[in-house]
Amino acid sequence: MRDRWSTARTEAFSDGVFAIAITLLVLEIGVPESDFDHLWYGIGHQWPSYLAYATSFVTIGGIWMIHHGLFGRLQYANAQIMRVNLGVLMAVSFLPYPTGLMAEAIRNSGAERAAVLFYGFNLLVISALMGALWAVAARHRELVHPDVSDQEVQQLLRATTPDLGFYVTVSVIALLAPHVAVWGYLVIGIRLVTRARSDDLAAPATG
Amino acid sequence: MRDRWSTARTEAFSDGVFAIAITLLVLEIGVPESDFDHLWYGIGHQWPSYLAYATSFVTIGGIWMIHHGLFGRLQYANAQIMRVNLGVLMAVSFLPYPTGLMAEAIRNSGAERAAVLFYGFNLLVISALMGALWAVAARHRELVHPDVSDQEVQQLLRATTPDLGFYVTVSVIALLAPHVAVWGYLVIGIRLVTRARSDDLAAPATG
Amino acid sequence: MRDRWSTARTEAFSDGVFAIAITLLVLEIGVPESDFDHLWYGIGHQWPSYLAYATSFVTIGGIWMIHHGLFGRLQYANAQIMRVNLGVLMAVSFLPYPTGLMAEAIRNSGAERAAVLFYGFNLLVISALMGALWAVAARHRELVHPDVSDQEVQQLLRATTPDLGFYVTVSVIALLAPHVAVWGYLVIGIRLVTRARSDDLAAPATG
Amino acid sequence: MRDRWSTARTEAFSDGVFAIAITLLVLEIGVPESDFDHLWYGIGHQWPSYLAYATSFVTIGGIWMIHHGLFGRLQYANAQIMRVNLGVLMAVSFLPYPTGLMAEAIRNSGAERAAVLFYGFNLLVISALMGALWAVAARHRELVHPDVSDQEVQQLLRATTPDLGFYVTVSVIALLAPHVAVWGYLVIGIRLVTRARSDDLAAPATG
Repeated sequence: MRDRWSTARTEAFSDGVFAIAITLLVLEIGVPESDFDHLWYGIGHQWPSYLAYATSFVTIGGIWMIHHGLFGRLQYANAQIMRVNLGVLMAVSFLPYPTGLMAEAIRNSGAERAAVLFYGFNLLVISALMGALWAVAARHRELVHPDVSDQEVQQLLRATTPDLGFYVTVSVIALLAPHVAVWGYLVIGIRLVTRARSDDLAAPATG
Repeated sequence: MRDRWSTARTEAFSDGVFAIAITLLVLEIGVPESDFDHLWYGIGHQWPSYLAYATSFVTIGGIWMIHHGLFGRLQYANAQIMRVNLGVLMAVSFLPYPTGLMAEAIRNSGAERAAVLFYGFNLLVISALMGALWAVAARHRELVHPDVSDQEVQQLLRATTPDLGFYVTVSVIALLAPHVAVWGYLVIGIRLVTRARSDDLAAPATG
Repeated sequence: MRDRWSTARTEAFSDGVFAIAITLLVLEIGVPESDFDHLWYGIGHQWPSYLAYATSFVTIGGIWMIHHGLFGRLQYANAQIMRVNLGVLMAVSFLPYPTGLMAEAIRNSGAERAAVLFYGFNLLVISALMGALWAVAARHRELVHPDVSDQEVQQLLRATTPDLGFYVTVSVIALLAPHVAVWGYLVIGIRLVTRARSDDLAAPATG
Repeated sequence: MRDRWSTARTEAFSDGVFAIAITLLVLEIGVPESDFDHLWYGIGHQWPSYLAYATSFVTIGGIWMIHHGLFGRLQYANAQIMRVNLGVLMAVSFLPYPTGLMAEAIRNSGAERAAVLFYGFNLLVISALMGALWAVAARHRELVHPDVSDQEVQQLLRATTPDLGFYVTVSVIALLAPHVAVWGYLVIGIRLVTRARSDDLAAPATG
């Protein structure tokens, strides 16, 4: 029996997980009852929650766009891709937890450092698994759509390999100045969204 | 490499986010334990939650219908549409938070004003982003399905441009009579649903 | 402009809402910390939650099957069907709230009566809206797939018309013996599932 | 009227339920406010939650892969498959509840035993229903895609029949050494993922 999985249902399932993880983030935000007498103040006081919300939303959105681009270049998945993909989804689904911690800890300088590093570690895991996803595809060239050139396979491989030097830098920043690192994560997320590669090959039938 | 994204998976992902945001709204509603001895009273006492629930449900439903109509007229998305769309989803996913605030604050005249304005601001952001979504499409005519006439593109552009005068009016009402504004939001939502344009072009293959 | 909406994306969105509403039900169930010393007792003590969970799960599952069967017989939707469908989804999404009330109230004879009637009222609204959905289709014969005979349209119309006598009976039972009514709802849900009509017409291409 | 249901919308609905159940698991995890002064400790202290999260995530992921493989071999569903499938989804949606119990109880040796057995019972029910799903298909050979050989139908039947001896063993372990059983569940989940059969037949059109 050949080890071939259709990508359609895997994409649908993955889209579902991404969509839910991204939408659950809002559940972490709330104004305490005691702030209702000064609600503008109470709403403003939640800014760390908004920052954490925006950061994780943009990050998950960017990961989704990259995922979209990678799967759009596959004709089939094999069992290994299915497993790595499940790992990606597990790490993405986990993100609301460090997001909540980071939002709560942002005013406590001790807790903030731990929360920010923990969040960064989750990002690194997601990033490593996304890299592994395409690395499997690059080693199993028959899974990749024939219209994708070897050169493009290699480009994507470089683009999805997590930049460890970058993560070390962010971690050092997180240790020294956790506040700055939080904004750094937002910048990383925005870069993911702006640099995601389109999935043109996913739509040859309508081209 | 051409900047083309298939709309199918983007629609699926967007539908997921809309469906989740609309269904999470019910989690905000609950009867406090202390009201269980007089449950009819307790159920009735939650009317602000029902009003807020209905308002946000109808609003998100209307936005979904408009989104449906816009994407049904696109052949491809480009990176800019992907980004603006992510912004729309982010603003829509955020709505359960001001919805909850509005439901809780509706009996506290000071808090109510802030909650109602904050809710209206969220609506304005969603509305502006939906306008931006179609504005991008109108500037990149090759993204739009060839069967859509220039006239229709312009009509949609006018229809999705947020009416700032209208929002200023609602904000003034929210300042003077927040209760009235809450009902006003419900009316806005209902108008979105009743005036959404069908997506006939989305289904040429079955025509 | 013709008033035609593709059913594909509407089904996808509706499936999303059904799937989420059905899965959120579990969030209502929990064992209080104080029962952890006698966890078997604590788990058993939650039986009203399990009953309410099973009832709402089976009910939403049955509604989904009927919805599936109705939409499978449509070629297009019109704006009216889109609106009624949004109403169905709104009523279905609301069900976790009375489900939670019923589970909590089942041991308090006063509260139970109110909770059971409120739950039944929610079911009646869902049922009336499902009836309205097909009534619209039956009046707009061009929306219905040509392979569906007039006789079948009429049969479905009768099958989806809510049986008011039945709901009056259940309401009287709910007033006199709320416990019995809860089990009655479970029976109603099971009947929905067992009597849903298949969607053969939805799959002519694979026939 | 023939008793035929299209598998496409059933798969979509099932994928939705699987995706939501798998993503809701993270909502059970949180660090108590009091641990924020020692957040690394607090994060580490939640390890039972991570273990329970990973176990349930991998288990639901594995069930989804098997489900994917089974439905990929069906041409149609009949009413009985629709009902058994609804049972599978109900049991899978229920899993976050025992997952939460297990995570909370893992440090209380009395409560742990009950929680671990309850979790195992939920797994057994899921497993039995998955077996029943394919047993229905095997008895209604016309539902199965003609390219699937009788031999493969029988293989799948054996593979999906729950191994009762195995569950008895795990239960005895759960009684004697609940901690070990928790890790055993993780191993079971990983085996589900690694041994799931691909759905090659689901994608003949792209073959």
